[in-house]
Amino acid sequence: MNTNNPLLTDLYQLTMAAAYHASGRSEQEAAFHLFFRTLPFKGGYAIAAGLGSVVEWLEGFRFEADDIEYLGTLRDAENGPLLRQDFLDYLKDLKLTVSIDAMPEGTLVFPHQPLLRITGPILQCQWIESALLNIINFQTLIATKAARVCLAAQGEPVLEMGLRRAQGPGGALAASRAAHIGGCATTSNVLAGKAYGIPVKGTHAHSWVMSFETELEAFEQYAAALPGNCTFLVDTYDTLEGVRNAVKVGKKLQETGHRLLGIRLDSGDLAWLSQQARVILDEGGFPDAAIVASNDLDESLIESLKHQGAKISVWGVGTRLVTGGDQAALGG
Amino acid sequence: MNTNNPLLTDLYQLTMAAAYHASGRSEQEAAFHLFFRTLPFKGGYAIAAGLGSVVEWLEGFRFEADDIEYLGTLRDAENGPLLRQDFLDYLKDLKLTVSIDAMPEGTLVFPHQPLLRITGPILQCQWIESALLNIINFQTLIATKAARVCLAAQGEPVLEMGLRRAQGPGGALAASRAAHIGGCATTSNVLAGKAYGIPVKGTHAHSWVMSFETELEAFEQYAAALPGNCTFLVDTYDTLEGVRNAVKVGKKLQETGHRLLGIRLDSGDLAWLSQQARVILDEGGFPDAAIVASNDLDESLIESLKHQGAKISVWGVGTRLVTGGDQAALGG
Repeated sequence: MNTNNPLLTDLYQLTMAAAYHASGRSEQEAAFHLFFRTLPFKGGYAIAAGLGSVVEWLEGFRFEADDIEYLGTLRDAENGPLLRQDFLDYLKDLKLTVSIDAMPEGTLVFPHQPLLRITGPILQCQWIESALLNIINFQTLIATKAARVCLAAQGEPVLEMGLRRAQGPGGALAASRAAHIGGCATTSNVLAGKAYGIPVKGTHAHSWVMSFETELEAFEQYAAALPGNCTFLVDTYDTLEGVRNAVKVGKKLQETGHRLLGIRLDSGDLAWLSQQARVILDEGGFPDAAIVASNDLDESLIESLKHQGAKISVWGVGTRLVTGGDQAALGG
Repeated sequence: MNTNNPLLTDLYQLTMAAAYHASGRSEQEAAFHLFFRTLPFKGGYAIAAGLGSVVEWLEGFRFEADDIEYLGTLRDAENGPLLRQDFLDYLKDLKLTVSIDAMPEGTLVFPHQPLLRITGPILQCQWIESALLNIINFQTLIATKAARVCLAAQGEPVLEMGLRRAQGPGGALAASRAAHIGGCATTSNVLAGKAYGIPVKGTHAHSWVMSFETELEAFEQYAAALPGNCTFLVDTYDTLEGVRNAVKVGKKLQETGHRLLGIRLDSGDLAWLSQQARVILDEGGFPDAAIVASNDLDESLIESLKHQGAKISVWGVGTRLVTGGDQAALGG
């Protein structure tokens, strides 16, 4: 479903537009300010995001014949046409003439500051309000969350990997975009990589390991196929045994001129396991191999893991980043 | 951005696919079960949803030239091509041959029950896992939330109006679809109405009222333009004065053969205001006029309002419905 469509609006914007039109006020000059009322995550700042997507949506604003046809099918409570034919005719030729002023993406923003100002004919300002609120509210929420997570990671790379639990395919894409604005280094979402030029990262899942008789064989086969992309997920069976298997395959990689990039922990006591894994990797001759950790992480957990002396060098963050976690919307 | 694209997947699905292909195992038969581990909202059930969108996504699964081209640009850690040319050639002609068995949408489902089973070549099962999880997880979450909200409303209509705070345009569309499956009567999102045939509802915002000198004039002008769609939002200035203005305009509507459908409360003490509004409407001769309420409602607030004896007959639910509120993802 392509959402780059002027029908991405609330019906009341449309009935108000019809009423502006009927009362001869559709061209009346108006100004709308888009702002939020409360900082998210009990934090001290927010990061503006979404403007690029707003521009893309506005540039695609045109009614196709089947949009107008659909609007013509809407009925009011008396089973008459909700919208008059002269209004539908007006929409057919409607071109946006509004002006937008906005905070650049990535700007620190605070409650009641206008993130965006729309000026122009009141009918148009009203119509596009819903889509603009939707885009800016969500991306600002996620860019802010990403910035918090990245601050907690103290400069270590944060990999966004939230696709599977994001709010729909579109929610995932928008979240990947906003997370990158907020500081995440990469996304797991290939489509987001293509669409927005965000670097993509990923290696393998537990299911890869489980499709072989042994974990060692799984790592070996992966290394044979993608020798330049070897970060092994080590917790399918016994985590520290997994690290040892990674070291074994890492040595074979070295023999063929490649290198073990690292390992990933996705369960268990990440602080303790990362410390043990670090020792095994160092003693195995891989002091530069990264330890990636994931498993429902957010800024609080990352901070806690750092306090516990975790030896994690790369942070994989998914669900709680791309949905906002316990705050799923920017207060308005 | 159209998400109906095979690149809507995690990079690791793709690198695993490359490794399956390189090791000659791409056609190996596999079965994946899609399930969740924990019921959402501390509740006793979930409602399966998303299958229709899964089918739509699967039917659109084909690689365009620019998708393959993009994949060819990906680099591994040694700055070599991440994916081999023979694998990219394989993808060009890839047609899905998996089989899907699934719970019908709207089915009551519980933890660890497979909502969906994919069988077929392991490469394909793996590739499509991310998109299917994304779609089913989110829509099941929202259908469940909607069912909870509708149960709390005890059969009174629930209007979904969450577009502006949903998680991106795509998140909004998917939420509208799932909310309707879960029991919501209508959506405010016109595009969701067009895409999924969901009835759409909406009248006017505070901004309509504020664009006139007086509230009375705003109601009159709205009634003149859309006499068959008059549910007046009464809380822009003084709520009960607003109800009286609605009654005045309602009488004029009657004189011209139309009727006042109702009023909407969007702030304040909804229990008390609805009781007062009911009295004013009844005494004004509008015992059938609906009282719609909105303002960050969810199932708990609706239940509380009912306990308080609120005279609300239609429930407008937005943010907390379309995002899941304090639970923004279905636990995996």
